[in-house]
Amino acid sequence: MKKIAGVLLSCAALLGVAAAASAQPQFEKAEDAVKYRQSAFALMGAHSGGLAPIMRGRVPFDAEQVKAEVAILESLAGLPWKAFGEGTEGGNAKPEVWQDSAKFQQAAQTMQENVAKLADAADTGDFDKIRAAYADTGASCKACHDSFRQRR
Amino acid sequence: MKKIAGVLLSCAALLGVAAAASAQPQFEKAEDAVKYRQSAFALMGAHSGGLAPIMRGRVPFDAEQVKAEVAILESLAGLPWKAFGEGTEGGNAKPEVWQDSAKFQQAAQTMQENVAKLADAADTGDFDKIRAAYADTGASCKACHDSFRQRR
Repeated sequence: MKKIAGVLLSCAALLGVAAAASAQPQFEKAEDAVKYRQSAFALMGAHSGGLAPIMRGRVPFDAEQVKAEVAILESLAGLPWKAFGEGTEGGNAKPEVWQDSAKFQQAAQTMQENVAKLADAADTGDFDKIRAAYADTGASCKACHDSFRQRR
Repeated sequence: MKKIAGVLLSCAALLGVAAAASAQPQFEKAEDAVKYRQSAFALMGAHSGGLAPIMRGRVPFDAEQVKAEVAILESLAGLPWKAFGEGTEGGNAKPEVWQDSAKFQQAAQTMQENVAKLADAADTGDFDKIRAAYADTGASCKACHDSFRQRR
């Protein structure tokens, strides 16, 4: 059993998947990391999309509802990035995620900063501020998709 | 176009998928709801699983790390339930989710209450309290899976 555990550990190290002693999710297999990040993006897309009709003025603006939804979006926005470790290439991610990882990390950082600004705007309850911050957030989603997500 | 939009709207109403004026995610198709709830459960499983080695004493306990991870888990725990509307049967969900929806809602409620207690325990930084609350949370996950998730 010790030998098997050792081999598994070596594989994990080789794959670069998370094996650190932390409370965070551990990805034993690359496909676990792909599933995790795709799940996080799916939820981010759904919650961002849920806000769209309000931002477009098609649904009445309710400041408390928007604040609650933005808080969920902010919580989700921090999640996917830890699941792009070395050896987890694939899914809808372009090779550039790993080939130009500094640019990818910067794009991820920009998106999270924009979501944080959106949360600040949501705290004010000012629709115009929220709409502007929502547009900035959407732009940073799109910029990252254009550079790092395979066309579907 | 108006006619098509009307038909689509009727289908959405028929399916019982979310069409309410809210900031929450809207599921135009049943498969969108299935994808959403499966994504939420995947993340919940990953974050719950990430805590397991600490709870089993295999990884050193870091109160701040655990608190941060439990906060993510608590945020996620509220998500899947809105995606079990009428007409979204399928995925890994047993028909009992809709046939015995009061029991399902109760199970969902119990799980969220247990995660809230886990968050309270994490705030204390007391490992034994956290471990007990984590076990309770895990038990409520399992109870719901046993009754409402297809065997895989």
